[in-house]
Amino acid sequence: MAGAPTPPTRLKVGLVQMRMTADPAANLATAVTRVKEAAAQGAAIACLPELFRTLYLAQREDHDVFDLAEAVPGPSTEALGRVARDLGIVVIAPVFERRAAGLYHNTAAVIDADGEVKGIYRKMHIPDDPAYYEKFYFTPGDLGFRAFDTKAGRIGTLVCWDQWYPEGGRLTALQGANLLFYPTAIGWHPSEKARYGTQQLDAWRTIQRGHAIANGCWVAAVNRVGLERPDGAGPGLEFWGHSFVCDPLGVVVAEAPGDQEALLIADVDLARVEEVRRNWPFLRDRRVDAYGGLTARYLGDAP
Amino acid sequence: MAGAPTPPTRLKVGLVQMRMTADPAANLATAVTRVKEAAAQGAAIACLPELFRTLYLAQREDHDVFDLAEAVPGPSTEALGRVARDLGIVVIAPVFERRAAGLYHNTAAVIDADGEVKGIYRKMHIPDDPAYYEKFYFTPGDLGFRAFDTKAGRIGTLVCWDQWYPEGGRLTALQGANLLFYPTAIGWHPSEKARYGTQQLDAWRTIQRGHAIANGCWVAAVNRVGLERPDGAGPGLEFWGHSFVCDPLGVVVAEAPGDQEALLIADVDLARVEEVRRNWPFLRDRRVDAYGGLTARYLGDAP
Repeated sequence: MAGAPTPPTRLKVGLVQMRMTADPAANLATAVTRVKEAAAQGAAIACLPELFRTLYLAQREDHDVFDLAEAVPGPSTEALGRVARDLGIVVIAPVFERRAAGLYHNTAAVIDADGEVKGIYRKMHIPDDPAYYEKFYFTPGDLGFRAFDTKAGRIGTLVCWDQWYPEGGRLTALQGANLLFYPTAIGWHPSEKARYGTQQLDAWRTIQRGHAIANGCWVAAVNRVGLERPDGAGPGLEFWGHSFVCDPLGVVVAEAPGDQEALLIADVDLARVEEVRRNWPFLRDRRVDAYGGLTARYLGDAP
Repeated sequence: MAGAPTPPTRLKVGLVQMRMTADPAANLATAVTRVKEAAAQGAAIACLPELFRTLYLAQREDHDVFDLAEAVPGPSTEALGRVARDLGIVVIAPVFERRAAGLYHNTAAVIDADGEVKGIYRKMHIPDDPAYYEKFYFTPGDLGFRAFDTKAGRIGTLVCWDQWYPEGGRLTALQGANLLFYPTAIGWHPSEKARYGTQQLDAWRTIQRGHAIANGCWVAAVNRVGLERPDGAGPGLEFWGHSFVCDPLGVVVAEAPGDQEALLIADVDLARVEEVRRNWPFLRDRRVDAYGGLTARYLGDAP
């Protein structure tokens, strides 16, 4: 709008890699503390992990778990909104959204630096895998892929399973978001870690670096950490941390450890988007005339 | 078709990483020799690098270069077709296609094991960058993204610049191709190698591994190698080799060196596609209802 200040081209982002407890109030308190620390370290944006208020709730199907959902705006965004306004920081707050009775979403609220919810993104791709029973809880998003104009510039957010879909990153970047956040809850089945752990973590990092490269934009992935066994029984899930930020060439510029909480502060230079895209002008040459098939489920059915 | 033999689920692929000379006949002779060697080592498919008949012709804009183009089918596919038929090997032969006067394409011919051209793919995304003046030479492909049923199974091929576009890999995989080939001619500007070389090579490898992960398919990239200075003057281009094969988790299972010719033989187990996609069922959850914007050039224009 006329007279609006130009967003910065250099900024710090703060990725809050958290270990969750069974107490939603304690998790919110931790998140508030970490966002304040991020602001104190100069971050213009802080991003929390997916569903940061709770232990990863989709390890089992339990109707009582819906009690953990909340409205958006609601308690989480209000508490974080106060911090955002007081410290002038943008906050990405992923919450278990109760939209109506029987209608829930896995949502990321983008809270602008004035404390108001600038908009929400509802996770579009919903997984369902043993111990990740998200289709039981979450209706797939109906708001599409989105970019948000914040005090820190135009950003995008997607959530976890979205990170495996180049379509989501592309559609968000095409809306002008030069910095994509992926709040996440991903980990190993403990029985698989020894055999597949390294490959799975590397695939997760690689495909998101690929989104940065394909779109010539920055990518920030924010994961939780720690072994969670909500029933106190069974193997649980070991969330693998390794939150990271990569530049428009896919170079990882900051990465958190895999076994502990971390507040990862990274310098982001949005001028790199212009520089990289000038040298590797992929957007110039997209064959938009030939991409219609991307809206098909499959194109290889037998005749 | 009824009675057709079931393609193998385990096969060897041969990636022919070549150093080109100024003599197209010599390059063809080398290619024939390497395809024979690949067959002797058990490869069911051999893939040659992009534009394997010549030095990389787009380092400069020169009307006489069009003399190097040929019809498809034509001399290159006939010579390689004889080898294919004699040895029962599928060959991917990337050629400078002369379609009509003033109409040329950067094409990959898929020669089946009977020696016939099963079909052609015309490079869809055409780059234009200093010393990669391809828009001068090549009309963008008009056949779309394609899969081909060969004796070795249903495969796809794309060419070089296509490798930066997730859309191309997706559209080919959606047609049932479980093994994607990317014949390539990519290298460093010598002046940039020290500063950017590692990042550029890594980005190239990363985004293609990302296509394998996103689609749960195998990917094989086949590059040329060596410094080429077609005029004997100027810095030229240093093609970086590093041809590789990765599995559906993006794990690189075979990789060629960066500074010499190589015949890279890799074992491909197509059953891994089923296994990986069952565990990471990304195709199940694509939001085809929300991907319409992918056919737009840009979605972030100011109102």
